[in-house]
Amino acid sequence: MSRPLITLLSDFGTEDAYVAQVKARILSALPDATIVDITHEVPPYGVLSAAWLLFTSYGYFPAGSIHLCVVDPGVGTSRAAVALKKDGHTFVGPDNGVFSFLYPADEATEILWRPEGHISPTFHARDIFAPAVGEIMKGVPPKQLGQPLTNPVRFDLAKAMVVHIDRFGTVITNVDCSKLKQGCAVLVGKTRIERIAQTFSDIPPGEPALVCGSASTIEIAANRMRAADILGAEVGMELVFEP
Amino acid sequence: MSRPLITLLSDFGTEDAYVAQVKARILSALPDATIVDITHEVPPYGVLSAAWLLFTSYGYFPAGSIHLCVVDPGVGTSRAAVALKKDGHTFVGPDNGVFSFLYPADEATEILWRPEGHISPTFHARDIFAPAVGEIMKGVPPKQLGQPLTNPVRFDLAKAMVVHIDRFGTVITNVDCSKLKQGCAVLVGKTRIERIAQTFSDIPPGEPALVCGSASTIEIAANRMRAADILGAEVGMELVFEP
Amino acid sequence: MSRPLITLLSDFGTEDAYVAQVKARILSALPDATIVDITHEVPPYGVLSAAWLLFTSYGYFPAGSIHLCVVDPGVGTSRAAVALKKDGHTFVGPDNGVFSFLYPADEATEILWRPEGHISPTFHARDIFAPAVGEIMKGVPPKQLGQPLTNPVRFDLAKAMVVHIDRFGTVITNVDCSKLKQGCAVLVGKTRIERIAQTFSDIPPGEPALVCGSASTIEIAANRMRAADILGAEVGMELVFEP
Repeated sequence: MSRPLITLLSDFGTEDAYVAQVKARILSALPDATIVDITHEVPPYGVLSAAWLLFTSYGYFPAGSIHLCVVDPGVGTSRAAVALKKDGHTFVGPDNGVFSFLYPADEATEILWRPEGHISPTFHARDIFAPAVGEIMKGVPPKQLGQPLTNPVRFDLAKAMVVHIDRFGTVITNVDCSKLKQGCAVLVGKTRIERIAQTFSDIPPGEPALVCGSASTIEIAANRMRAADILGAEVGMELVFEP
Repeated sequence: MSRPLITLLSDFGTEDAYVAQVKARILSALPDATIVDITHEVPPYGVLSAAWLLFTSYGYFPAGSIHLCVVDPGVGTSRAAVALKKDGHTFVGPDNGVFSFLYPADEATEILWRPEGHISPTFHARDIFAPAVGEIMKGVPPKQLGQPLTNPVRFDLAKAMVVHIDRFGTVITNVDCSKLKQGCAVLVGKTRIERIAQTFSDIPPGEPALVCGSASTIEIAANRMRAADILGAEVGMELVFEP
Repeated sequence: MSRPLITLLSDFGTEDAYVAQVKARILSALPDATIVDITHEVPPYGVLSAAWLLFTSYGYFPAGSIHLCVVDPGVGTSRAAVALKKDGHTFVGPDNGVFSFLYPADEATEILWRPEGHISPTFHARDIFAPAVGEIMKGVPPKQLGQPLTNPVRFDLAKAMVVHIDRFGTVITNVDCSKLKQGCAVLVGKTRIERIAQTFSDIPPGEPALVCGSASTIEIAANRMRAADILGAEVGMELVFEP
């Protein structure tokens, strides 16, 4: 059997030791684990961005991977802790919408199990979630960690919206590329974008254009400029798609 | 025997190749090592923050881990290189206060050993410390790398102070949570903080509050705002704790 | 045989999931691979900086390592994909100058091989380069992935110039330290720098000085200040070296 693979996604940033403490708990449970950071620089409280990044990334990892996703503004409150199974992958984190794109899951458990020892009310990632991942890595089926999850928290994914803005200022939407054809347009606030480009370097300077992005959804990009700044776009902003 | 685990903590940032060169030296010595970054984004010259992050993190790693900690504004000067042992962990780095919280150590060695080859006066982490870690990983007892360390550099830890400010702007102190009880207060400069909260989301917007943080010391946090900015707090600033 | 070692260097940043998707592709091909980030924070489109960081780092890694370097403003255009061999190391990335310092290579191949499945025009690192690394890790000789590369894109390395500016604002040049001797001077724009220092802490505050840097080339540094800002230096800027 190959080494277990755990991914981490959080808004902890990398300038403190929070991520390292989570990794330490995982490696203490299973020293042979491979840990891959998805990112820890989701904007603080950026649950929708995190949900999108997780959704568009997990499938590239081998089945059997465990994804620990902790963007958790409600840490220490009564929000549930959950473990999901989908497509042979396992997901662990808070029930706050971060798993929105994964429903319906193959299995959804509210984690009631708690490890022994002190649990900091401000750091469940280290003191509850990472130990729960440790249990799962050791072979405990997630559903044995609690009870079936009912009514998970979910974003309304039916509307067309900005789901992420990346490092390059590219505005990423949840609208499938199949809608990208001559004559279509996206309205971001008051700006209407019609130009379609194949690659970033095809875009004329200063003029945002529609591109089929790397997650096969429509993106609004600019050539060597930040489209999000040009457009005043923000994560969660609703879009009008024409026709 | 499981794979050796090395942690790295520095102020090198992640935008250059400095950290990678240190890792390369370690992996050249022992290709099977597991390397975990604690952080490389300590503010440049932030020795006290680094000392705190190391102190509050190492215990989560398995005994036998080696912690290489290089926040080293005096690189190339006559400051000593040290190797400490404590609680089954080994620590390697400069003698500049970064190990303050670890004294008394079980063993403290001034590293006099030097590897063969060119040693850059500006990059001891790559050219002295990482090779020293390589020697220790191969089984050389740290005390064979030099002579007993006398008079290590230490911060004055008796005073109540700000030891770190985290990504969220939370002000972290070295005052134990046992002091956090109704009627107590912390003075940061001219601001007196009395409110006590259990979790970040309990705090009313705009009003910093005292929280028992994840290292079991008192923190001053604000709800979705940077308490450090509201208070003008800086690392190393002395605090008055009442009563 | 020890585990294959792959390094990654890009301008993807770490706030999105791009790096993780590349790692996922590599780990899906070879779960036992060790992946080391050189950096992902090269300034967007900073091909010369990336070239320098790669050149000055790869030699610290064990021979047999594979270096995937994707700073690729021309992604999706007709720029070639290449695989180089040099000193027992393998390098994979776009033919845009990022391998300038490695020529003459022992072998240079234009990669014509393409993996099965969808290839995003904006993300060749994930959809072409990482799978190509997977092939090489599995034992396919790079030259079997295409045809000999002719006329690689190269920076003009004959001129003295700024090749990188690091986190500390230190200005890194491609001028060998052997030229650093009493009476020499470097002109950056209109500023002439003559002072020579051994270590950063030897430099008087506010006065940039010449230092022999960690890659054995001349650097212009300031003590606890950003020399690049004082001098208005930029990557690619030509320097005058006297005498």
